[in-house]
Amino acid sequence: MAGNTFGTLFKLTTFGESHGPAIGGIIDGCPAGLKIDADIILHDLSRRRPGQSMITTQRNEPDDFEILSGIYQGVTTGSPIAFTIQNKDQRPDDYAAMKTAYRPSHADFTYDQKYGHRDHRGSGRASARETAARVFGGAIARQLLSNSGIKIDAYVSAVGPFKMSDNYELVDFSKIESNIVRCPDAELANKMINYLEELKKKGDTTGGVITCVIKDVPAGLGEPVFDKLHADLGKAILSINAVHGFEYGSGFAGAAMTGSEHNDLFKKQGSKIVTSSNNSGGIQGGISNGMDIFFSCCIQAGFNINDGAENSE
Amino acid sequence: MAGNTFGTLFKLTTFGESHGPAIGGIIDGCPAGLKIDADIILHDLSRRRPGQSMITTQRNEPDDFEILSGIYQGVTTGSPIAFTIQNKDQRPDDYAAMKTAYRPSHADFTYDQKYGHRDHRGSGRASARETAARVFGGAIARQLLSNSGIKIDAYVSAVGPFKMSDNYELVDFSKIESNIVRCPDAELANKMINYLEELKKKGDTTGGVITCVIKDVPAGLGEPVFDKLHADLGKAILSINAVHGFEYGSGFAGAAMTGSEHNDLFKKQGSKIVTSSNNSGGIQGGISNGMDIFFSCCIQAGFNINDGAENSE
Amino acid sequence: MAGNTFGTLFKLTTFGESHGPAIGGIIDGCPAGLKIDADIILHDLSRRRPGQSMITTQRNEPDDFEILSGIYQGVTTGSPIAFTIQNKDQRPDDYAAMKTAYRPSHADFTYDQKYGHRDHRGSGRASARETAARVFGGAIARQLLSNSGIKIDAYVSAVGPFKMSDNYELVDFSKIESNIVRCPDAELANKMINYLEELKKKGDTTGGVITCVIKDVPAGLGEPVFDKLHADLGKAILSINAVHGFEYGSGFAGAAMTGSEHNDLFKKQGSKIVTSSNNSGGIQGGISNGMDIFFSCCIQAGFNINDGAENSE
Amino acid sequence: MAGNTFGTLFKLTTFGESHGPAIGGIIDGCPAGLKIDADIILHDLSRRRPGQSMITTQRNEPDDFEILSGIYQGVTTGSPIAFTIQNKDQRPDDYAAMKTAYRPSHADFTYDQKYGHRDHRGSGRASARETAARVFGGAIARQLLSNSGIKIDAYVSAVGPFKMSDNYELVDFSKIESNIVRCPDAELANKMINYLEELKKKGDTTGGVITCVIKDVPAGLGEPVFDKLHADLGKAILSINAVHGFEYGSGFAGAAMTGSEHNDLFKKQGSKIVTSSNNSGGIQGGISNGMDIFFSCCIQAGFNINDGAENSE
Repeated sequence: MAGNTFGTLFKLTTFGESHGPAIGGIIDGCPAGLKIDADIILHDLSRRRPGQSMITTQRNEPDDFEILSGIYQGVTTGSPIAFTIQNKDQRPDDYAAMKTAYRPSHADFTYDQKYGHRDHRGSGRASARETAARVFGGAIARQLLSNSGIKIDAYVSAVGPFKMSDNYELVDFSKIESNIVRCPDAELANKMINYLEELKKKGDTTGGVITCVIKDVPAGLGEPVFDKLHADLGKAILSINAVHGFEYGSGFAGAAMTGSEHNDLFKKQGSKIVTSSNNSGGIQGGISNGMDIFFSCCIQAGFNINDGAENSE
Repeated sequence: MAGNTFGTLFKLTTFGESHGPAIGGIIDGCPAGLKIDADIILHDLSRRRPGQSMITTQRNEPDDFEILSGIYQGVTTGSPIAFTIQNKDQRPDDYAAMKTAYRPSHADFTYDQKYGHRDHRGSGRASARETAARVFGGAIARQLLSNSGIKIDAYVSAVGPFKMSDNYELVDFSKIESNIVRCPDAELANKMINYLEELKKKGDTTGGVITCVIKDVPAGLGEPVFDKLHADLGKAILSINAVHGFEYGSGFAGAAMTGSEHNDLFKKQGSKIVTSSNNSGGIQGGISNGMDIFFSCCIQAGFNINDGAENSE
Repeated sequence: MAGNTFGTLFKLTTFGESHGPAIGGIIDGCPAGLKIDADIILHDLSRRRPGQSMITTQRNEPDDFEILSGIYQGVTTGSPIAFTIQNKDQRPDDYAAMKTAYRPSHADFTYDQKYGHRDHRGSGRASARETAARVFGGAIARQLLSNSGIKIDAYVSAVGPFKMSDNYELVDFSKIESNIVRCPDAELANKMINYLEELKKKGDTTGGVITCVIKDVPAGLGEPVFDKLHADLGKAILSINAVHGFEYGSGFAGAAMTGSEHNDLFKKQGSKIVTSSNNSGGIQGGISNGMDIFFSCCIQAGFNINDGAENSE
Repeated sequence: MAGNTFGTLFKLTTFGESHGPAIGGIIDGCPAGLKIDADIILHDLSRRRPGQSMITTQRNEPDDFEILSGIYQGVTTGSPIAFTIQNKDQRPDDYAAMKTAYRPSHADFTYDQKYGHRDHRGSGRASARETAARVFGGAIARQLLSNSGIKIDAYVSAVGPFKMSDNYELVDFSKIESNIVRCPDAELANKMINYLEELKKKGDTTGGVITCVIKDVPAGLGEPVFDKLHADLGKAILSINAVHGFEYGSGFAGAAMTGSEHNDLFKKQGSKIVTSSNNSGGIQGGISNGMDIFFSCCIQAGFNINDGAENSE
C-alpha cells in the first residue's frame, strides 16, 4: 500500500527524496476562496529548516517553494494545490561512506528489506527533509483554521533531562521564538542549549519533548470509534520522523490518578458548558468538547556513527 | 465522515449501541481458505468481558456471537465475514438518571454537540462495549497472523501507582492469565488488586498501563511517511475507549537518552542482521526490522458520579 | 482488496451469500435526525424481489429485514445503521448439480480462480440476491435525498428487441408500476411480456435496458477529474449484476451528433440559468448543472443450462 | 471531497490548470525495481497531444516532462513518482472573451456554481489538458503491466456516422497508427477525415467511439460486488472529458440477445479453461476470466460558439 497521503477532506500527498531535484506535494480538498499569505508559508518553512544554529545539522537550504496550481492571484481556486521545494544542496558524495554500512536507528536497513535497495544519497525518502512538505501543507491548513478562529501553538517542553512543568497554562507562548531551542522558559532553555553544545563537542546529541496546544476548537469535531480526533492526531504526530510516543490530556501520568481525581466536572460558564478541569485534553469519546486540546510527543535522538550527522536530515 | 471502519486490506467495520439489540461488524478482505477456530473467538470475547471479578463493572453478558457470512464449514471463503453479538442485558431503565446530566469524562456531552441528541441508554455507540466487535475482528486477525508465525502478547504493566519494570524481556508471558488484573508479576498483581478493592469501597477506581509485545514479525512490513507501522498501531490503540497515550520502543523515557546511548547497532547473527539493543521497538523509518515490536498505552479511569459505574460499559 | 463498500460520506458495506443464514450491511455516515419510514424500505425490497410473476425466477422470499443499530424510535442517531435480511429459502440441495460444472456467464469459474473455491450453494456472494442489501441502502438514501427535494424514477425502457423512444420527457412515471415489466408504455409492455413468456416456454430469457431520471438536483454537486458525478454513478450501476453498459445524457447515439447539434445553450429562466437542450444529461465537467440527470444501463440475460434458472438469483 | 486521485494500490493524484505554469501528478504505490523507458512516456504524451493535424485543436505543445522523485538511474525506487509537464503555451488573453459568457457544454457554469468562481483562462482544471497527467500515469502503468505480459490496444471505431463493425477480432492493430484518426480501417478512416474536414470548414466538429482491447490478463483479477473490474474500468473511462458512455463485452447491443445466444460456454483448450464465445468481455462476476477484455466508450463533440475552439483543450 502506498503511504504518502494524509487526510480525507483536506488531503496532503507528498513526494521527494533528500537528494533528488525537489520535494513537494499536492493538497487536494482545500476550499476555494481562501486568501493565502505566502509569507506565512516561508516563515513556517524557515522555522523547520535545520542549520539555524550550531546545535542542529549543518545543511542550510533556504527552502524556496514554487506553487504550480490551485492558487490564482493569491486565492485558492478549489483545485489541487501543487508545490515544489527545490533541493539546492545535493551532495551525493558526502554520503558515499553509507554505501557500505546501515546507519543505526535509521531506515537504511528496513528500506533495503522492503524495497530491495536503498538510496545511499542521504536517507532518500526516509530523510526528515520530507517534513518540509508537511510544513507547507500545515501552513495552508493553519490559514484555513485561523479563519475559524482556531489557534495552534507548540513549544519544546523537554530536552534530555531538562523538563518544563506539565501545566501549559503557565506558559507564555509569546516567548517560544525567543531562543533557538524554542523553549518558552528562558532559564531552562539556557540549560538545554548548554547541554546540547556539550554533547555536540563529543559528537553526540539527545532527544526531547514537544507540547502543542490548540485553542478555540468548536465542540463536536472528530469522529466516533476508529477515527477519534485524538487517534487521528496521534497517527499524524507518530508519523513524523523520530517520534516514539504521543499522549494527550492527562497522558501517561494520568493513568495513576483515581477516577474521582481525574473526572472533569461540567459546569455552566455563562451560556456555555465547560469543564472545571481538563484532564480529557479537550476531547471526550473522540470528539472535541470545546476546551483546549493539548498533547505532547517525544522525539528520540538519532546519531550517525559514520559521520557524526544527526538523524534529522 | 463516517468513522466506523479500520484497515485497508483487512478491513473491519463495526456497529452497535450498548443497549440496542446487538453489536457486530463486517470483516472485508480476509483471505479465503483460513481455518477459523470458534473457540479462540469465544475465549478472546470472554477475556474482554467485564464482570469477571468484583473489580470491574457488574454487567455480565456471555457474549455469544453469530457468524452470518464469509465462513463456510469452518473455513473463510474470501467473502465478507459478518458477525453479531447479542446484547442480552438491555437495561434502559437503569440509565434513566442520565437523561438529566452529562456524565463527567464520558461522551454524553460531545455526542450531544455532534449529533444533536444522545442515547441515554448507557453510552450508546460510545460505550466500551463497542470493543467486543474489535475483539472479534482481532480474534480472526490473530489466527491469520499466527499462520505466519507472528505471536502477540499483552499484559497489564501498571495499575494506579503500581508499575512493573520497563523491560518486557524479564516478563513470563505464561503468567499473564494467572490473576484477574492480568499482571504477570504475582506480587505486584496482589497489590494492584488490593488497591482496586479499596478504591471500590469508596466508589472510586483508577487507571493503568498495558504493554504489548509482538514477536517474529518479518522485516519490511509497514509503509513510509504517513502510514508508518507504528503510526497505524498508535491510531488503532488510541482509538480504544479511555486510552490517553501510546509509546513504542524506548518511548517517553527514551527522549532523555543521548544518541550514542539510544542507537541500536546492527550486527550479524548467523545469516540474519539483528540489532544489539532494541530502543527502536522493532520499527525503523516506519518499517519493521525483524526485532520484537513492543508498545505501551495508558488507560484513564472513568468514574460516574451518578451511579458509581465505571467508564468501561 | 476488499470490494464490499461503496461511498465515502454515506458509505454502504454489504455482506452475505445467497444461501447462508442472512445477507445485510452497514450504512456509515447517515446524518442523525433523519426520520425513517420502514414501509418505504419494505416497499423497495418487495419491488426488487424475484418471483413476483411467471416471468422471473421462482424463488419467493418475503425479504423481512431487521435493524440492529443506528435507528432509535424511528430516527437515525448518526451511528452506523446495521441491518440483516434473512435467507428463508436456503436450498443447498437444489444446487448440487452445480458442483460438477461451471455455469456459463456466471461467476462460478472466476470465483474459483480468485478464491480457490466456490460456493456451489447458488451463486454464493456473486448471487444477484446481494442487490437486496443495496436496495435497503438505497431506501435510506432516497429518504435522505427526498428531504432535499430530489426525486428519482426508473423504468424498463427495453426488453429484447422492444424499445421505447429515447425521450424520457414523454414518459408518464405514474404508469411505471402498472405492469410487471415496469415499462410505462402499456402497449409495449404487453409485447415485452408476451415475448418473455414465449422465451420462458423454451427455457430461455433475454436482456433489457433500464432508464433512470433524477430531478431537482441542485447545481454544483459532484467532483472534478476522477470522481466526476457521472463516473461515480457509472461505477455504481456497472457494479450491479449483469449490467454491461452505462450511458448518460445523449449517450452512444450522441457521439454521432455534430458539435453544433449537441451543444446545450445556456439561457435565463427567471432568475435561474438553464440550458435549452439537455444532451449533457444534467452534468457538465462532472458536476451537476441543475437540469434533469438521466442515464440508461443495459442488463444482459443470464441462462443456466443446468437447471434453467435465470442468472438473477 | 477532493476528486483528483484514482486507484488504491497504484494510485495517481493529478494537478494543474490548462494555463497555469505546469500540470503533473504523483504516482504512489508503483513497485520498486521497475525499469522505466522515458521514450515510451514521450511517445504516449505525443499521441495524446492536440494539434497533430488540421483536424484537432490548434494548440501545439511538445509536452516535455520532468521527473522529480521516485525514479533513480532509470529504475523505480518504490517512493512516490512525481512529475511535471510544463504549460509552454500560456495564452490567457485569447480567452478574455470567455469572461463574459458560459461556453455551452463546458464546465464554466458548473465550476462557477461549485467553487464560486471560474478560471477564465481556458477551462482551468476542467480542460482536457488534464488528461496529459493521466497519460503519464498510464505510460508507467503500461510498462508495469507489460512485464506481466498484458497488452493494451485502443483505436477509434467510429467518428460521426462512420462506424467499424463490432468485431474487434477482425481488426489489425498494427494499422492503428497509420492515419491521423487512428482508425485501423483505412477506407473508413478516409471517410472520417473527409467528414471532419468538411465540418471544420463550417466551424463544426463531431464525436466518436473508442474501442479498447486488453489481452493476456490472468484469470482472477478484480473484486466482487462494488469494485468489480468493469465497474472500476467504467469509472476510469467515464471520468475522461467528454465521455458519455461505456460498454464492455456484448454491451448495449447484447441486451437484445436471448440468454441462449448470449451464454459463453466453457470448454477445455489444452489444460486451460476458455469460453467458446466472449460476450462477457473477459469479465464474469466482476473478475477476469482470462479471455480478452474489451470495451468501448463514446466521446461527444464539444463546440465553442465564442471562438470555434473544440472542447478538447
